[in-house]
Amino acid sequence: MSHPHPELAPPPPLADGALRVLPLGGLGEVGRNMAVLEHRGKLLVIDCGVLFPEENQPGVDLILPDFSPIADRLHDVVAIVLTHGHEDHIGAVPYLLRLKPDIPLVGSQLTLALIEAKLKEHRITPYTLPVREGQVEQIGPFGCEFIAVNHSIPDALAVAVRTSAGLVLHTGDFKMDQLPLDGRITDLRAFARLGEEGVDLFMVDSTNAEVPGFTAPERGIGPVLDQVFGRAERRVIVASFASHVHRVQQVLDAADRHGRKVALVGRSMVRNMGVAAELGYLNVPPGVLVDVKRVDELPEDQVVLMCTGSQGEPMAALSRMANRDHRIVVGEGDTVVLASSLIPGNENAVFRVINGLIRLGAKVVHSGNAKVHVSGHASAGELLYCYNIIRPRNVMPVHGEYRHLVANAELAVQTGVPRERVVIVEDGVVVDLVDGVARIAGNVPCGYVYVDGSTVGEITDADLKDRRILGEEGFISVFVVVDAATGKVVAGPEFNTRGFPGEGEERFAQVRTRIVNALTEATSDGNVDAYRLQQVLRRTVGTWVAQVHRRRPMIIPVVVTA
Amino acid sequence: MSHPHPELAPPPPLADGALRVLPLGGLGEVGRNMAVLEHRGKLLVIDCGVLFPEENQPGVDLILPDFSPIADRLHDVVAIVLTHGHEDHIGAVPYLLRLKPDIPLVGSQLTLALIEAKLKEHRITPYTLPVREGQVEQIGPFGCEFIAVNHSIPDALAVAVRTSAGLVLHTGDFKMDQLPLDGRITDLRAFARLGEEGVDLFMVDSTNAEVPGFTAPERGIGPVLDQVFGRAERRVIVASFASHVHRVQQVLDAADRHGRKVALVGRSMVRNMGVAAELGYLNVPPGVLVDVKRVDELPEDQVVLMCTGSQGEPMAALSRMANRDHRIVVGEGDTVVLASSLIPGNENAVFRVINGLIRLGAKVVHSGNAKVHVSGHASAGELLYCYNIIRPRNVMPVHGEYRHLVANAELAVQTGVPRERVVIVEDGVVVDLVDGVARIAGNVPCGYVYVDGSTVGEITDADLKDRRILGEEGFISVFVVVDAATGKVVAGPEFNTRGFPGEGEERFAQVRTRIVNALTEATSDGNVDAYRLQQVLRRTVGTWVAQVHRRRPMIIPVVVTA
Repeated sequence: MSHPHPELAPPPPLADGALRVLPLGGLGEVGRNMAVLEHRGKLLVIDCGVLFPEENQPGVDLILPDFSPIADRLHDVVAIVLTHGHEDHIGAVPYLLRLKPDIPLVGSQLTLALIEAKLKEHRITPYTLPVREGQVEQIGPFGCEFIAVNHSIPDALAVAVRTSAGLVLHTGDFKMDQLPLDGRITDLRAFARLGEEGVDLFMVDSTNAEVPGFTAPERGIGPVLDQVFGRAERRVIVASFASHVHRVQQVLDAADRHGRKVALVGRSMVRNMGVAAELGYLNVPPGVLVDVKRVDELPEDQVVLMCTGSQGEPMAALSRMANRDHRIVVGEGDTVVLASSLIPGNENAVFRVINGLIRLGAKVVHSGNAKVHVSGHASAGELLYCYNIIRPRNVMPVHGEYRHLVANAELAVQTGVPRERVVIVEDGVVVDLVDGVARIAGNVPCGYVYVDGSTVGEITDADLKDRRILGEEGFISVFVVVDAATGKVVAGPEFNTRGFPGEGEERFAQVRTRIVNALTEATSDGNVDAYRLQQVLRRTVGTWVAQVHRRRPMIIPVVVTA
Repeated sequence: MSHPHPELAPPPPLADGALRVLPLGGLGEVGRNMAVLEHRGKLLVIDCGVLFPEENQPGVDLILPDFSPIADRLHDVVAIVLTHGHEDHIGAVPYLLRLKPDIPLVGSQLTLALIEAKLKEHRITPYTLPVREGQVEQIGPFGCEFIAVNHSIPDALAVAVRTSAGLVLHTGDFKMDQLPLDGRITDLRAFARLGEEGVDLFMVDSTNAEVPGFTAPERGIGPVLDQVFGRAERRVIVASFASHVHRVQQVLDAADRHGRKVALVGRSMVRNMGVAAELGYLNVPPGVLVDVKRVDELPEDQVVLMCTGSQGEPMAALSRMANRDHRIVVGEGDTVVLASSLIPGNENAVFRVINGLIRLGAKVVHSGNAKVHVSGHASAGELLYCYNIIRPRNVMPVHGEYRHLVANAELAVQTGVPRERVVIVEDGVVVDLVDGVARIAGNVPCGYVYVDGSTVGEITDADLKDRRILGEEGFISVFVVVDAATGKVVAGPEFNTRGFPGEGEERFAQVRTRIVNALTEATSDGNVDAYRLQQVLRRTVGTWVAQVHRRRPMIIPVVVTA
């Protein structure tokens, strides 16, 4: 991936007793969050998440942090601290544990429960150390203190790391909802205490740094749901993220208030809410939950369906309902609520789903026309509070695209952090904390690692470029068998095309003669090297298609000598 | 394309003296706007625009309205009325005139100037009838009155069409800016007069029907630009649409106020603004414009560059600047303004550009962090005014996705239009106005027509599906030469892959044996039919790749008998 310090050299060996921070993901992108702290020869990993591909990474299932910079030092890794249970913070753990399964996982009860469920699918049983807010654990040379923070999933933690080089505070993902559903607020007292002690490096969530003001409280969604449930004539179908326990909590509560039963739809929704309920993070009002198989027995105005697919994911329940491709048949009078954000890049897919549902007669409520979503991240106003409470000596914005990191850095400077004490870096850029000063120390190669089907790291950016060309232009393959002795064409040229206009061999009558002539000329010297003839073939077809079709499809020439 | 009336039959012949409306584009999508009015055997076309493809239409250059429903009746078309000069209203005219070049074009001076410039590139000289607001023209059986409306391009017109079947008012695209830069307001007096006369069918722009309140005035952008220009340390680079004359006007004026010179960058920007200035729609302050070749001679704090690319189009000036692939080198202290909307689906591309510019040290101002854009379409509040002023007997929402059409219909109903007098239809659904009542009369097949390189309408949805599969999965081609007599494999299997993990022939060692065995078995009966053997080949490779790679690449089996 591109980053702003291409000119940097590899970092020198870490000064004795100093602290090094190596971000392997999440800086310069929203996702695959992973930071490595190094001190006295040991490594502490904070989060290990996945990134979901964009349209210019076609076919890719997942994108992982690049482990190669620490691949030969996994025996030095004392633990992986997981700040919360979102995919972009835990999703890559199975791939790291594949390399060394005995690295201990440290996190809150819910976070560990979610990663353990995921690891089970990978047939890995991890070593775990459950921690709570307020708890202090010495992990190798790293003195870790865990602090309650509030986010769009329960039981999230910030982590303060004490070393002889100084105190690092990493917020994880957080916001500062002052009236959270579970009463578990971001512990600003602890932030203040650490500020008094002196935070040498503040690593802080940048996701919403561009958003002015304050993130609205999750609680505010309840009354909106009440309104929607109150007006709904028939069924209510709510789509959200399968990990958003508090959002689901509010749907359960609203359903209970309006005498409706809730059926959870979709494997991930059922699994996660099962875990959350079991551990007491989701309080299910008695009798509110009903099996999806039983909803047809209920009057439609007593039904709520809670499903995934709020991002227009084609395979998710909601998209399939919109396409009349789901056992739940949406119709006139149904109300659909997309209780989630609209992640950039998903707009067309989401609006396709919304249009489909409206065509079927449903009313659709979404963040564009009602307050049915609030962000899980601190906006600029909240970040200013943090900076003023903590008064960090050095700041390193984390978690966001470059624009987010820069916006967060500006907030730090506005609160009085000296500009030269704010380091804006992207993945692979190494920051050393020496004598209380954080400085960029160098740069390690750090690319995208693609999970593609059963392969990890085998798909290259060149393969993706091929896919983009194939996807845009299609291809023409042309096969020719030439006589090994004479070079005479004995079979073909035979054409195959996909994603290219028209049908039938007659399309190629013109280029067929060009090919035969070109090959005859090329072999006139008796040289029938297949590779060379393939180049001739490629050039001949390429020139023809550019002239006649004004397109540049991929051309696959195959010459076999027989 | 999908539409909500699949069950409809083709419409009956039009009742004598009745009026028929056939939408061929723009209803159910934002773009390729085209409506056909039929009366007494004659056809009047209103607009003929293009639609820009979404990510699920890879490689497509443009999407046209489907002309086939009127293809055999082009001799009945009395004119094409063009409401304004945007691509989604005029872009498909060259393709319609290719079929019959002598269909007259009716529109305002600027609109005709823009389409004539475009037609010149297609080597077509059209018959034109320039009209002004207030002008009335009898065109065949259609009595057309043209009404000033205000939009994001100057000289836009609504058209009222009088026939013995009743009066139709088509707004085109419009908003109701009460203090437009050019003082040319949407003529509500005319709307009122027509309302008094009685509007039997009101075809009204739905684009912003979901947006509550009122669209902010274009004029409001001036002070924001003043602020930005005032603070800018070095160059200011403004990106917007090449047709947005008033936006460019405000940039020229702001530059003039701040002692800066403006260079227009990009062919379309230079061409359109040349036309607009020539016709007096763009007032260039004396000495403000400078040739882009001369900007390097000016002090950087006296330079404004006006370019395209505000949607992240990879080939446009702005994207190339962000990628350091443009002669204009963006650097520390430059200010970039994206003075345009963010069209859904372009988010990732636009944010890539923004991140790239910020990495280069530029400050980036965009609609997300400053009021540098206002919409060109009437919001709900303005539409309510229209309905109340006009009090139409029947309403047909136009120009928008299904959700927009439905939202617009609800506004009509709220102002007292009987629900049964509001027809919500998508492309291809025929509406007849008989005895003052508008009813759905039937349905004509109406698909997407893709322009792809030099081909029009040759790329099919099946081809696009192939492109999507190729783009997601890549392909494996397998080439085998078998002995025509014995069926024995004499050459190959030879593998070619693109967009598929790994390299080298060894990947296929395992499946190679499977293939040879499968072919040997298949030909054991002496049947060496190539097609049949290709199916065997496809099945063998397909099974293998699904098992081993858990992917479904396209498989191209070729068996040549020699």
